[in-house]
Amino acid sequence: MRVALGIEYDGTPFNGWQSQPDGASVQDALERALAAIAGTPTRVTAAGRTDRGVHAAMQVVHFDTDARRPLTAWVRGVNAHLPDSVAVLWSVAVAPEFHARFSAMRRHYTYLLADRPARPGLFAHRVGWHHRALDVTAMQEAARALVGTHDFSAFRAAECQAKSPVKTLVQLDITRVGELVCFDFCADAYLHHMIRNIVGSLVQVGGGKVPSSWIGELLEGRDRTRAAGTFAPQGLYFTGVEYPEQCGLTDTRRSLTLIA
Amino acid sequence: MRVALGIEYDGTPFNGWQSQPDGASVQDALERALAAIAGTPTRVTAAGRTDRGVHAAMQVVHFDTDARRPLTAWVRGVNAHLPDSVAVLWSVAVAPEFHARFSAMRRHYTYLLADRPARPGLFAHRVGWHHRALDVTAMQEAARALVGTHDFSAFRAAECQAKSPVKTLVQLDITRVGELVCFDFCADAYLHHMIRNIVGSLVQVGGGKVPSSWIGELLEGRDRTRAAGTFAPQGLYFTGVEYPEQCGLTDTRRSLTLIA
Repeated sequence: MRVALGIEYDGTPFNGWQSQPDGASVQDALERALAAIAGTPTRVTAAGRTDRGVHAAMQVVHFDTDARRPLTAWVRGVNAHLPDSVAVLWSVAVAPEFHARFSAMRRHYTYLLADRPARPGLFAHRVGWHHRALDVTAMQEAARALVGTHDFSAFRAAECQAKSPVKTLVQLDITRVGELVCFDFCADAYLHHMIRNIVGSLVQVGGGKVPSSWIGELLEGRDRTRAAGTFAPQGLYFTGVEYPEQCGLTDTRRSLTLIA
Repeated sequence: MRVALGIEYDGTPFNGWQSQPDGASVQDALERALAAIAGTPTRVTAAGRTDRGVHAAMQVVHFDTDARRPLTAWVRGVNAHLPDSVAVLWSVAVAPEFHARFSAMRRHYTYLLADRPARPGLFAHRVGWHHRALDVTAMQEAARALVGTHDFSAFRAAECQAKSPVKTLVQLDITRVGELVCFDFCADAYLHHMIRNIVGSLVQVGGGKVPSSWIGELLEGRDRTRAAGTFAPQGLYFTGVEYPEQCGLTDTRRSLTLIA
């Protein structure tokens, strides 16, 4: 049978999502815990691969198993075998056609950024940081140019393996929540480092280094070397996935706000 | 001169606030960083000593120094010498009569508790946990008996060194914020483990094990052995201090909400 899991994790102690030879990834930890319950090696496929230091409030995975276990065993039993910083939230039996990655229509991410003189201490490894107050209105104005279907080559990492640089950014909301600036992204898919590269360039706008129109010009230019650097991973949270209704998964989105 | 600092920390990697022979406390880390800037050993006094695993969104400390440094050096310079999980937020020159502990009139703490089937993963070490949904209304009703000036012996740890068990609990607000239950405490001072003992007993009420009236009866009975166990430290945050206006400190409170 095929089982889907909703999971959350603090990315700090891991070497990213994807399985590594050293076994220090989130995927490795999850596969070890599943194997302990299933009694056999068990591979998982995730909706999205998160980089080292990136967190997940909602990641969706699927796996195939011949082990007959009550569905709760894939939550409580697996959680008992997982490290502190990863937890399974739910498990659902899905059709064999369901695929955590290929069935996903849209993926949501939130970037949390503290813009204040002192670096984060209480939320070290949990938020990004800029040392000066950012102009949220200017960033909102700039972000409008990014929404829609575009060639995002300007924000694409050199290592990116995507077949096409064309993605559809459905939403990019920027709001101030307490001491933090929250960037909420929704897209069909993302190029490698696309979100962190966009945040890096928006921070240039918010800090007044460049006008709002610069972001649209960067996008048009499709030249990664003209954009700003990749922003730090620790403010980035995977916050959910949208699947077609017939998949039967109802709890695949999670809003996340951290006000400090 | 006497200097006051506002600081924040994630308590997870430390052995509590108070200086330890192994040097692994928050106080030890701060004193080492201050000594690096001052050029001489520098001792600090805090508004409140937090237990191992407890965090601070706002802790206030003072220290005396002969070192002539611009006030910003006690923020930026010290932050450069502090571990990731501690940060100085501000520094203010205060009168020699100011005392971070003895001048404090009221102290604020917030306890964050996730009440859900799965243990915390993303916010491991950051929130307390109860495996079932809690009845917030019942806990609010129970908490009313605690507000005011009372002998809090029922919620006092055996090791408590306070001269008197009588404290004034000014406020105890319990609210649901997203997936979390937030307990906001304000009191002149607290007995050792008082907040975590109160939260432990309120969770018994919220879980339906005992009626709301039980909390008032516990308080009246003044018998620690009848109350519930001490709740986990990781959901507890020191959120600020109130000083008399003439102290000249304006930024000593911090509201904290973490919605996951």
